[in-house]
Amino acid sequence: MTGKEFFKGTPLATVLELTRTFPCVSEEVLPLDQCVGRILSTDIVSQINLPEFNRATMDGYAVQARSTFGASESMPALFTIVGAIEMGEVPTVSVKAGEAVRIATGGMLPDGSDSVVMVEHAEALDDYTLEVFKSAAPLQHVIEIGEDFRLGEQVLSKGSPLRPQEMGVLAALGKTHVPVYRQPIVAIISSGDEIVPIEKPPGLSQLRDVNAYTLTGLVRLSGGVPLYLGIVRDNLDELDRFCRSALDQADMVLISGGSSVGSRDFTLEVIKGLPDSEVLVHGVSISPGKPTILARSKQKAIWGLPGQVASAMVVFQVMVRPMLETIGGLSEDRLGAAYEVSAVLSRNLASVQGREDYVRVKLVHRANQMYAEPILGKSGLIHTMVKADGLIRIDINSEGLDKGAPVRVILF
Amino acid sequence: MTGKEFFKGTPLATVLELTRTFPCVSEEVLPLDQCVGRILSTDIVSQINLPEFNRATMDGYAVQARSTFGASESMPALFTIVGAIEMGEVPTVSVKAGEAVRIATGGMLPDGSDSVVMVEHAEALDDYTLEVFKSAAPLQHVIEIGEDFRLGEQVLSKGSPLRPQEMGVLAALGKTHVPVYRQPIVAIISSGDEIVPIEKPPGLSQLRDVNAYTLTGLVRLSGGVPLYLGIVRDNLDELDRFCRSALDQADMVLISGGSSVGSRDFTLEVIKGLPDSEVLVHGVSISPGKPTILARSKQKAIWGLPGQVASAMVVFQVMVRPMLETIGGLSEDRLGAAYEVSAVLSRNLASVQGREDYVRVKLVHRANQMYAEPILGKSGLIHTMVKADGLIRIDINSEGLDKGAPVRVILF
Repeated sequence: MTGKEFFKGTPLATVLELTRTFPCVSEEVLPLDQCVGRILSTDIVSQINLPEFNRATMDGYAVQARSTFGASESMPALFTIVGAIEMGEVPTVSVKAGEAVRIATGGMLPDGSDSVVMVEHAEALDDYTLEVFKSAAPLQHVIEIGEDFRLGEQVLSKGSPLRPQEMGVLAALGKTHVPVYRQPIVAIISSGDEIVPIEKPPGLSQLRDVNAYTLTGLVRLSGGVPLYLGIVRDNLDELDRFCRSALDQADMVLISGGSSVGSRDFTLEVIKGLPDSEVLVHGVSISPGKPTILARSKQKAIWGLPGQVASAMVVFQVMVRPMLETIGGLSEDRLGAAYEVSAVLSRNLASVQGREDYVRVKLVHRANQMYAEPILGKSGLIHTMVKADGLIRIDINSEGLDKGAPVRVILF
Repeated sequence: MTGKEFFKGTPLATVLELTRTFPCVSEEVLPLDQCVGRILSTDIVSQINLPEFNRATMDGYAVQARSTFGASESMPALFTIVGAIEMGEVPTVSVKAGEAVRIATGGMLPDGSDSVVMVEHAEALDDYTLEVFKSAAPLQHVIEIGEDFRLGEQVLSKGSPLRPQEMGVLAALGKTHVPVYRQPIVAIISSGDEIVPIEKPPGLSQLRDVNAYTLTGLVRLSGGVPLYLGIVRDNLDELDRFCRSALDQADMVLISGGSSVGSRDFTLEVIKGLPDSEVLVHGVSISPGKPTILARSKQKAIWGLPGQVASAMVVFQVMVRPMLETIGGLSEDRLGAAYEVSAVLSRNLASVQGREDYVRVKLVHRANQMYAEPILGKSGLIHTMVKADGLIRIDINSEGLDKGAPVRVILF
């Protein structure tokens, strides 16, 4: 047998296409201050001009720009100070040629003025007389009506993640409550006769349930709500019961373990017995992560993940996370964007043709360049994951990558 | 006057040093499943060998490696199958030369065996006879006792952020509860007579309180807990009252607005009247963000941030976030690491010498290279922040950066 034959199985691209055939979660409306990190479920159109008035962006004097033309340190332009703008009040003065009005950052420009002279470019000789040392251009240090957003303009689009700045936009538009997608609930089931709860000292040959915690963390960081259901022993009825309960409560189900030949068949058998079920993928041509199952029941995804901790994490990053983002409403053009950075490979790296390899890397900044340093180690070892910052992908048709090659790093 | 004079003020490096002189928050103990994103407040030493037994990493057959030497497709080695390992049970069989025992991924190797032959490299002719087609090296497809972590080894260090993989390590060690740093509470005060709550339609010349929401989001994303106290009008007593209340409830205080000359003096006056207070910084030599104040009262930081939304965000990213990480217990070598990526500048960019410029950029992946595309626009405009993915810094002594220059991007 050749390496290629081992890695028959569905290509990753096909798996990712399949993940996009599952429906989005429903919407909910949240108070704006709780929206950071959530996904907008509707387009937002501005109902106002922002700002609604010409606003100063510097402390200084509102003037007609043309009155300053030609002013310099040696030949200052003279102005008459005719008033001061109180913050938050509509100016009662107006500005004519050769007149100036004191204004602070954020203040509303008075009628007649079209420019702000910075306080650093002017000197008040007394309460009424101002020298200006520099020409001001029209609209200098001014934000015009509607310059940020115009009435009727679409300012945010459905499927956008809400970062602090998008929260700022919504605040500026007075959106106290915001329609967002619900966070997908992800049921986590650990399987295997050898797995024990972490509070229990494992007997010799037993293993603590590590995947429950790595997956809990991954689900949270991917915008989902983890729902850990516990450990299922290698027992058909028990796994069936857990799966049905998971499908009732969650939007997606993760079963880790059960990746050995026997257990896998067993997980498949249970899945086939679930309502409206279909096995979509059984084995993926990536390493680590080959023994992965994707199935559908009642329009919900059931993933069978490898039991090895690092393999399960890789499968999560590469397949489950994009799917969680998709059913969580993230627009397609943004999928994965938050998790990828570019770097340069620090050494040569070999690979087996016929499968996609995912290699753990550590990121190292040197000067202004980021390097990806491969961390080699068995996929059952968790300490290799602790050292790593992300994964790089070696193409299915590639025999490896050279030192210095540009790579994209999927961040953990 | 020259640009240089305007940008007197404290260099950023000095401000960052000052932020490290504030004390850390206290600790708390959390259930492991709630620890993702939190900062470990103690070193973790392994009290066990992990794994505690030699573990198979593939489905296959446990053998003595030397019995396979020389095996090939054309000349398979013959083995007698003497049993099978049940998952989670201590093997009762032992393996001699020429013997094989069925084993699944995660299973415990029986006495006498030192290697696992993958199921793909072997064929069982009947229940007792196995052909092996490939030489197996000693310890092939085996994780040895203590290979992941050894008894007594320090596995995680104080000040580390807990990612999913660190949660996995803690699970493997049976740590159901974990000592972490408390999340710093950050009081947010908005100031200015022109600022109105977002639910209120602003009158002409008034502005909705946008900073409260951008800062709330930023605090949450930086591991803090935002505590919005409301809007203070330009009134000494009121600001004093808000500040004292903030210091009682929070670990850090942010006052946005009050950055115009008059209001700034006013914020300074209030700060000087607070208990054990000291103004550390009044003006920073960066743009945008010059009118920034850092003060200390009762060992807590009070920041006066610019009122312009983009400026306040830049100051937060560049100064407040590293400080939040520091008082939140993050170890110094990790400060900011999570937020920086490298990229290549997409066009020439000019700058004024004598100040550090922070320029908003959009990240664009092309092939395997990430480009930083400058987004130019006034710092009062929030739509420029919506378009941006991060900031790049132009050095205080630089006149600008050339197209193609490597840059580090501080992500939003």
